[in-house]
Amino acid sequence: MTNATNIMRMSELYVPTLKEDPADAEIASHRLLLRAGMIRKTASGVYTFLPLGKRVLAKVENIVREEMDAIGAQEIMMPALQPAELWYESGRWNDYGPELMRLADRHGHEFCLGPTHEELLTATMRNELRSYKELPLALYQIQVKFRDEIRPRFGLLRSREFIMKDAYSFHADQESLQKTYDDMSAAYERICKRMGLDFRPVEADSGQIGGSVTCEYMALAEAGEAELVHCACGYAANAEAGDCLARPTVYDVSKMEKIATPDVHTIAELAAFLDIPESSTVKALSGKNAEGQLVVMFVPGDHDLNELKAARAAGGFELLTDEDMEAFGLHKGSMGPVGLPQEARVIAARSLQAVPKWVVGANEEGFHYVGARLGEDFDVDEWADLCTVQPGDSCPECGLPLEGARGIEVSQVFQLGDKYSRAMGATFMDEDGEERPFLMGCYGVGISRSMAAIVEQHNDENGISWPLPVAPAHVCVVPLVVGDDFVHPAAEKLAAELSKLGLEVVIDDRKERAGVKFADADLIGWPLQVIVGKRSLSEGKVEIKRRSTGARRDIDLVALRDGLAFTLRNAKTWGNELSLFGQLFE
Amino acid sequence: MTNATNIMRMSELYVPTLKEDPADAEIASHRLLLRAGMIRKTASGVYTFLPLGKRVLAKVENIVREEMDAIGAQEIMMPALQPAELWYESGRWNDYGPELMRLADRHGHEFCLGPTHEELLTATMRNELRSYKELPLALYQIQVKFRDEIRPRFGLLRSREFIMKDAYSFHADQESLQKTYDDMSAAYERICKRMGLDFRPVEADSGQIGGSVTCEYMALAEAGEAELVHCACGYAANAEAGDCLARPTVYDVSKMEKIATPDVHTIAELAAFLDIPESSTVKALSGKNAEGQLVVMFVPGDHDLNELKAARAAGGFELLTDEDMEAFGLHKGSMGPVGLPQEARVIAARSLQAVPKWVVGANEEGFHYVGARLGEDFDVDEWADLCTVQPGDSCPECGLPLEGARGIEVSQVFQLGDKYSRAMGATFMDEDGEERPFLMGCYGVGISRSMAAIVEQHNDENGISWPLPVAPAHVCVVPLVVGDDFVHPAAEKLAAELSKLGLEVVIDDRKERAGVKFADADLIGWPLQVIVGKRSLSEGKVEIKRRSTGARRDIDLVALRDGLAFTLRNAKTWGNELSLFGQLFE
Repeated sequence: MTNATNIMRMSELYVPTLKEDPADAEIASHRLLLRAGMIRKTASGVYTFLPLGKRVLAKVENIVREEMDAIGAQEIMMPALQPAELWYESGRWNDYGPELMRLADRHGHEFCLGPTHEELLTATMRNELRSYKELPLALYQIQVKFRDEIRPRFGLLRSREFIMKDAYSFHADQESLQKTYDDMSAAYERICKRMGLDFRPVEADSGQIGGSVTCEYMALAEAGEAELVHCACGYAANAEAGDCLARPTVYDVSKMEKIATPDVHTIAELAAFLDIPESSTVKALSGKNAEGQLVVMFVPGDHDLNELKAARAAGGFELLTDEDMEAFGLHKGSMGPVGLPQEARVIAARSLQAVPKWVVGANEEGFHYVGARLGEDFDVDEWADLCTVQPGDSCPECGLPLEGARGIEVSQVFQLGDKYSRAMGATFMDEDGEERPFLMGCYGVGISRSMAAIVEQHNDENGISWPLPVAPAHVCVVPLVVGDDFVHPAAEKLAAELSKLGLEVVIDDRKERAGVKFADADLIGWPLQVIVGKRSLSEGKVEIKRRSTGARRDIDLVALRDGLAFTLRNAKTWGNELSLFGQLFE
Repeated sequence: MTNATNIMRMSELYVPTLKEDPADAEIASHRLLLRAGMIRKTASGVYTFLPLGKRVLAKVENIVREEMDAIGAQEIMMPALQPAELWYESGRWNDYGPELMRLADRHGHEFCLGPTHEELLTATMRNELRSYKELPLALYQIQVKFRDEIRPRFGLLRSREFIMKDAYSFHADQESLQKTYDDMSAAYERICKRMGLDFRPVEADSGQIGGSVTCEYMALAEAGEAELVHCACGYAANAEAGDCLARPTVYDVSKMEKIATPDVHTIAELAAFLDIPESSTVKALSGKNAEGQLVVMFVPGDHDLNELKAARAAGGFELLTDEDMEAFGLHKGSMGPVGLPQEARVIAARSLQAVPKWVVGANEEGFHYVGARLGEDFDVDEWADLCTVQPGDSCPECGLPLEGARGIEVSQVFQLGDKYSRAMGATFMDEDGEERPFLMGCYGVGISRSMAAIVEQHNDENGISWPLPVAPAHVCVVPLVVGDDFVHPAAEKLAAELSKLGLEVVIDDRKERAGVKFADADLIGWPLQVIVGKRSLSEGKVEIKRRSTGARRDIDLVALRDGLAFTLRNAKTWGNELSLFGQLFE
């Protein structure tokens, strides 16, 4: 356990790599972070970071910290324990549901383990940040967070204890909020790029956090939980949140006709029965809004109603139970706009406005209408954006068909407005001496989640391939012989020289077969391997291998050193220089 | 919120200093960290670290991290959430008591919030660390911890959520454990020194953690919770843990005499009644051990029985209730060794062995004996170390009288032996192919507590005086005029130059009176202040002030820059160079 130089030694590092895939690891990042000895599961959705995993985590944290500091945000640290009172004040003690982990202290006082810190920071500020002169202010922390996911899975992608960077800003006016929001957004783009992520900033929905203007940064990956749509023009959105411009098709018949549709209860069955595409049919859904009003919604047959959009359009929207439907005289498999109960409020997807004739249920068991004429046979009370966007829908910016993708949400920016400051009475004195609630923004980066997203994008059948700025070390020197007086000393000397150049170096000084060392190096994912063998060394050469491309070549020892020294001298910002090895070795 | 250079600006920094002392802050560190705008209370014993507080915390963390890395310990990060099962295995789920914060997840599974991580890491290792070849291994983390103190107080000194560095080591044999224990001990001394702490390594008791060999690092401070004794010879101990060599005095009478002592129930009353010092009396305490055996203990009248020592000597020791005493025919205010019940096991403090005649209770209400002769009038079954050490007791190393002091426990090292590995079945294969439990050590540093201890030792009536290596910044440049075209630009230029030298610089660019800036600078405790005023500047000079000594002097601007540049070039390890400013400015 000596560490005379700052070279890491595989003989001492605790890196318990696994040969076999762990049983319950379904996706690449989960499987490979376990196999590479970087994380271990402690409980469902709760992980321990082993030395190499902790190193990667620290790299991600530092990138985030640097970018936050660069835009003038100030680092603080709030506690994980949050008094329940604050969450009662904001109304979220009840709203947050069972994902909020709760406990009582020995005196019976209620606390939660913070999944986010709007309440706590707003409460801290309301007593002290009193004047417009102290605004704007942006504070951030990098801290452990808790969310009791009902089904934790996918390793670090959906865990119950995780590391977040969360930032909060306080403003006197919207212009100032917008400025910080823009600064944060730009920082988030830089953070994603520096981590080596292929990402899209997408339109998002603000969910439980509240507020209105928001954007998610999505790392594109098949393992992602979020469905995205994006367009060559640059537009991208979370399918849940984007503006849905569906393209329904018209089944043209000369007049409205009621047809018997025995055993037809679903859109798929209706389309099959009529031999038309689902996009030519119209789907109906009945529900009640928050005030108990009956609301019937219509969407293109090939689209799904989006719950959040429906609730927003109707003022709450809870689907009717079978009993309720019966009470209203509605038929589950054959609802339509013709002959609805008088009291029904009819809201239809905006994209149906262009469809003059609808294929819909006849509000009669076993019957549908074709050619029901909008404005003649029936009317719609309101048009709204009701659907989850699908690939093939029109881009709201340019009209071309959207493409679909899956993404991992690595970060999100929000304009909260005065949601929390108003609820919690956090005000400041403006220039005219008036008390006003702060405008606030909040900005999150999933630190441990980003680590998983990076692996999802940078892996192959042999293991992880870390981008340089987040790799646990830059170079692994692999002596093929250990303990001799030729190969091993040369490898140690080279490792020391590379370390002196400012590279983070690990040497695989274990007495293992070459195959074991190569397999571990590929599994762990060091960006560059330098292989020191007897034969090439006797010619003054070593072999280098770039993990990302698999490219190998022999290189003169002197050329390696001098080349690296030259490149490092000329790399403007070394941490950013993703292509450093590329410049030198290809 | 721009931050073009890395100079901090008081006009932008969030440092809500307070003019008044907060009501409930009893000790200097609590009061001053609040007043200097470094921490805020979130709940009882739960604090938020504001920007400057977080900076100090990060400095302390980095010192600890560097010293851990230097001895080859590897950083990891374990979760705060720990499954109850692991604590059931070790037996501590019940033993730990109400200080352990507990909660259940949405599925009803029990967890605790880790106050320490022996169980969790032992469980992680038992499945994977299998061979003596991988030993020894030392892992550490810097992480938030939870302990539900019954009466949180003193700010960061006794809080319920706090930051700890905890390290754990695994070994095949005692020699290896001792080696790492010694390495850790040496690292802990360096850590205390680098933080600027006046400290003592003291003999300690291992308490709830378990194990036998242990040492505490105590920062000497009146506010400390621990009582210490120390000697000029170098010996030091926690008064609870040290070997007690009391110096009882003898009240010599010719023969044993029973005297009426009406209304005498306490040692103080007895001593006053007889007009002798308390050290001439003998105190008796009756209790039951774990097996229910009656045990009566005798200690010098001027000393207190130490519960842990008593329990160790008797195999558990619970004081008798008044009812129990009555049942045994014992009298609370007048117990003595003469005429005890037959079944009583008599244990006396070793220092009473040298006292031939005792002043003790007569086991009869209202009567005591003087001159009760040891070995004639009564016998003692066992002699043991039973008392908490007091100032004036003899040093066990050199015999001189010990001095008393109070201390803050900032860190502790333990040899756990196989306590956890045996209980939890964590074994490895030794060189002979035998399965054996690991030997383990554990090593903690209170990070947030160290921060408080530093303030306790480095403050005066005007505020904090941070030692250089942990200061939130090294230098504060104070322009006495802001916004003019002479003083302010010169101050900005100087700040930029000092920053380029590698110093951490803050500039007080607020439009405040000089008095406000001086008061804040002293309260916050920047080690060096550079005051830029119109008159001295017109002579090419600035005033410098060292916070620690209060010394001020005018210095030529060029001399300041060149002097600092020279000193910095020659300071071997800048972070360690406590005396840097001293060399230059005095």
